[in-house]
Amino acid sequence: MAIRDINPLMPPAKIGIVGGGQLGRMLSYEAKRMGYHVSVLDPTPSCPAGQVSDNQIVASFTDYNAIRKLAESTHVLTYEFEHINADVLCELESEGYKIYPSGRTLKKIQDKLIQKQILKESGLPVPSFKKVESKEDILNIIESYGLPVLLKTCHGGYDGKGNMLIKNIEDVDKAYEAFKDRKLMVEEFIDFKCELSIIVGRGLDGSITTFPVVENVHRDNILILTKVPAQIDDTIKDKVEYVGRKVVDVLDDYGIFCIEMFLDQKGEVYINEIAPRPHNSGHYTIEACETSQYEQLLRILTGLPQGSTKLLSPCAMVNILGNNEVFGEYTFSGFENALQEENVYIHIYGKKFTQNLKKIGHITVLDKSRDTAIAKAREALNKIKIKPLI
Amino acid sequence: MAIRDINPLMPPAKIGIVGGGQLGRMLSYEAKRMGYHVSVLDPTPSCPAGQVSDNQIVASFTDYNAIRKLAESTHVLTYEFEHINADVLCELESEGYKIYPSGRTLKKIQDKLIQKQILKESGLPVPSFKKVESKEDILNIIESYGLPVLLKTCHGGYDGKGNMLIKNIEDVDKAYEAFKDRKLMVEEFIDFKCELSIIVGRGLDGSITTFPVVENVHRDNILILTKVPAQIDDTIKDKVEYVGRKVVDVLDDYGIFCIEMFLDQKGEVYINEIAPRPHNSGHYTIEACETSQYEQLLRILTGLPQGSTKLLSPCAMVNILGNNEVFGEYTFSGFENALQEENVYIHIYGKKFTQNLKKIGHITVLDKSRDTAIAKAREALNKIKIKPLI
Repeated sequence: MAIRDINPLMPPAKIGIVGGGQLGRMLSYEAKRMGYHVSVLDPTPSCPAGQVSDNQIVASFTDYNAIRKLAESTHVLTYEFEHINADVLCELESEGYKIYPSGRTLKKIQDKLIQKQILKESGLPVPSFKKVESKEDILNIIESYGLPVLLKTCHGGYDGKGNMLIKNIEDVDKAYEAFKDRKLMVEEFIDFKCELSIIVGRGLDGSITTFPVVENVHRDNILILTKVPAQIDDTIKDKVEYVGRKVVDVLDDYGIFCIEMFLDQKGEVYINEIAPRPHNSGHYTIEACETSQYEQLLRILTGLPQGSTKLLSPCAMVNILGNNEVFGEYTFSGFENALQEENVYIHIYGKKFTQNLKKIGHITVLDKSRDTAIAKAREALNKIKIKPLI
Repeated sequence: MAIRDINPLMPPAKIGIVGGGQLGRMLSYEAKRMGYHVSVLDPTPSCPAGQVSDNQIVASFTDYNAIRKLAESTHVLTYEFEHINADVLCELESEGYKIYPSGRTLKKIQDKLIQKQILKESGLPVPSFKKVESKEDILNIIESYGLPVLLKTCHGGYDGKGNMLIKNIEDVDKAYEAFKDRKLMVEEFIDFKCELSIIVGRGLDGSITTFPVVENVHRDNILILTKVPAQIDDTIKDKVEYVGRKVVDVLDDYGIFCIEMFLDQKGEVYINEIAPRPHNSGHYTIEACETSQYEQLLRILTGLPQGSTKLLSPCAMVNILGNNEVFGEYTFSGFENALQEENVYIHIYGKKFTQNLKKIGHITVLDKSRDTAIAKAREALNKIKIKPLI
């Protein structure tokens, strides 16, 4: 396993982040807390991370020159979003710029087919999958896997975009039409008992830390609830941690990685997806762990030792999502009710516009038990209403 | 006790902060976390708070028009520094602008003589004090109080500036010469066993919360160490809490207040100073309390209910101060050593220049006991070196 020569970056060294959404914002809070200079690249002026950073380059995630400029004006570069120009990252690395995780890893992850192939070749558990190039390919796979199956675009999908569940043979036409002309794969549908995830950090010194295994609930393919810790027996916990460590071992890279998995009815785990960055299912670490996923990434980027990932309290995280009643500029009501309970932490990302299912904030609740934390988080969420900004 | 009509401000409502130092910066982190818009007023471009806020008005703290502009462009105003134009705050309040704590309170606190007179009249324990207008006045007071005494300017002092300890009759000339032409007072010197402080929050609903009583150590009149909690018996703790609550009761205002006290050898407490804002001795609340003093102030400013001030762990806070070896632009070494221990939280304020005794950061350490936390905090501080930025 490669170990980088470490010469820690000290403030006011400059951190560059490609992508200025909520993940970049929360990374920037930690970087600023420790005195670093932060520049973000994002096409939206005053984006969530830009509001709390020293500098924003307003440009597209695929803008070669802008990403180069960000690298040239900072000491280390990372990204909070996968769908960016990975080629320029590889080129910059070959010139000696520090980028974690590397563009090479990002390219592997950007193509879901390649991602799954690498994992499978390394003996890691993944659902059965196959590349498809025609409607006939899909029908053949259904014959072999049985129904349902998932048709996926290999590039560009997130929050369920780019995924289509095929339940009946009649769905094949529609699914194929929706995605044709794109590189596609079909994946076996795992009849899961629950969805689990683990955040793993790998430092420039080769050290690996794992955060607690958590349980995630999705609706419309979007994360709505993280339960901390996952209620699973030790055998499964060990499996998830083993898989998490093995993944970063296989990628042989540095940074924070989230590995989402399915737990099936028989107690087997299968990797669903890898994110080479902090993850929505790790927001809870801000209040509930000795070191948050964001501080951990900052420490890794700057060559500092990783911190303790000890869980301080059971907790729950619920996303605050836009709905189909309010579009455009917005405000809220009900914070005063949600904050009647103790240990309720509201995070709002400063996005100017809302729309249906858009992630505009989250709430983390710590409590003596996971179940009471979940109940309180749901209650708090119900008390907060999104209102049009007049 | 007056209770304001509460109509909570919801994000993206705008918070204005006069003063953009570290206290404003840490308030801004909380405001941004909850989605508020933050504007700061400070004469230094890219000041500590400006770096993490949406907007900075670059202007003097006494600039009438600039403070007015800040009030006009925000929904609620506060300040993180006492030495600002209080008259304009009073004027703006009379026009209906929300300012917490009010300009009226700030004016009382800005004049140390008036501050002490109000406290004394309310039956609160303060050291003996008297206004002085001549060298003869000082000599007369010394005859009555005995030596040593403190000569203080009534306006503008902080971090020991504006205070002079008179140990011998021979010191009187020098002290008087240094401060003459300013409004002066002499104060009895309390032979203290230790210095204590308490942070008290008063909400728009009249609710009062108190943070744990802590013990402070100063060197060269600058806070260097806060020990949490204070090691005092319950009678003294009750006295400190009583005094803290009574002070905000007397001021009849809203916001976060720090009350610094001396504990003398007989177990009596005396108020040293009041700050109508978050305080250096409350930095520890970020990691060690369920709600930090900064979040508490944000909640008060926006009309949200105050949060729990429960202490989660014994801890210690040490300031990172500039020394007389490095001037101007600076960086650090040794973070990687300081962070070898767990539960060490480094805060660096992003000030561009350092100088002797300047507060450029702090370290909070949580540990199972207060004494081990203090030892670890001192160790961490020793490992961090300030270096010139080349």
